Amino acid sequence: MDLKSKIRVIEGFPMEGISFKDITTLTKDKEAYKYAIEKIVADLRERDVDYIVGPEARGFIFGAAVAYGLGVGFIPVRKPGKLPAETASNKYELEYGTNTLEIHVDAIKEGDRVAIVDDLLATGGTVLSAAKLVESLGGQVVAMEFVIELEDLKGREKLKDYYVNTLVKYDK
Amino acid sequence: MDLKSKIRVIEGFPMEGISFKDITTLTKDKEAYKYAIEKIVADLRERDVDYIVGPEARGFIFGAAVAYGLGVGFIPVRKPGKLPAETASNKYELEYGTNTLEIHVDAIKEGDRVAIVDDLLATGGTVLSAAKLVESLGGQVVAMEFVIELEDLKGREKLKDYYVNTLVKYDK
Repeated sequence: MDLKSKIRVIEGFPMEGISFKDITTLTKDKEAYKYAIEKIVADLRERDVDYIVGPEARGFIFGAAVAYGLGVGFIPVRKPGKLPAETASNKYELEYGTNTLEIHVDAIKEGDRVAIVDDLLATGGTVLSAAKLVESLGGQVVAMEFVIELEDLKGREKLKDYYVNTLVKYDK
Repeated sequence: MDLKSKIRVIEGFPMEGISFKDITTLTKDKEAYKYAIEKIVADLRERDVDYIVGPEARGFIFGAAVAYGLGVGFIPVRKPGKLPAETASNKYELEYGTNTLEIHVDAIKEGDRVAIVDDLLATGGTVLSAAKLVESLGGQVVAMEFVIELEDLKGREKLKDYYVNTLVKYDK
């Protein structure tokens, strides 16, 4: 299946100069959505994954379905103040400003094998922050899976210590 | 399976007097998560559903997996400014203040059969707002599915025009 043809590109969102990749046209298409989830599940099948971790909010749309398809649990990584129990947090740099992610401290234990699933690999800042949270709790990040990769932002260079798989690549 | 035993209750979050139902302990448990998704999928199997609509953000965690399990598309309903293409929006009252939800105007067409999936039925304000968005585009809401129902908030009374199914009930 040509997954790229199912993704809508919107110029100038959320700001001028950005060519936004809209995954809602893909998730709405039952064959495309099933295909994307099954491709990620197949890539994770032999990696002995205990949990899928997905960053809020679009990471939930793919991560949760992958967890269900793979038959493992789903652990959300969220923006500050959203998770109700004790959390660990990690602040990271964006192009403009900073962002913070949180995980429940009892979500992961020593030795747990985790795959992080998100919609988009851009600069890699979000997934690296999620990986640090997992590792801070003793977990091992055995894979990072994305639907889309924006190659010109060189996120893979930042993630060279990890196994990274992406389904659809754009130059920019 | 006793799903209720998988949900963690946290007193005083996000404010005093609230007994918060934490679904992250359920989604982390692979058997419980699979069971919850399969219960919802089974309830929707004969309802001829075209799409699952899920409200941001916890609605994605259950709605996306249900869509995948049922073999239909997933359509997100989001907070303002998150969806990149043209949207319809609906503002609704909360106990304190208001909230607004948006949907892509081309996400639903006349006659589409939609099930809305969310984690929690409290007062019913969010799901009713999502239903109005679907109906404003010509869609039909054939079911509303929730993991948790807080019965004392009487959300069902507000939803009496709809088929409503919930998996776990709390008095409050």
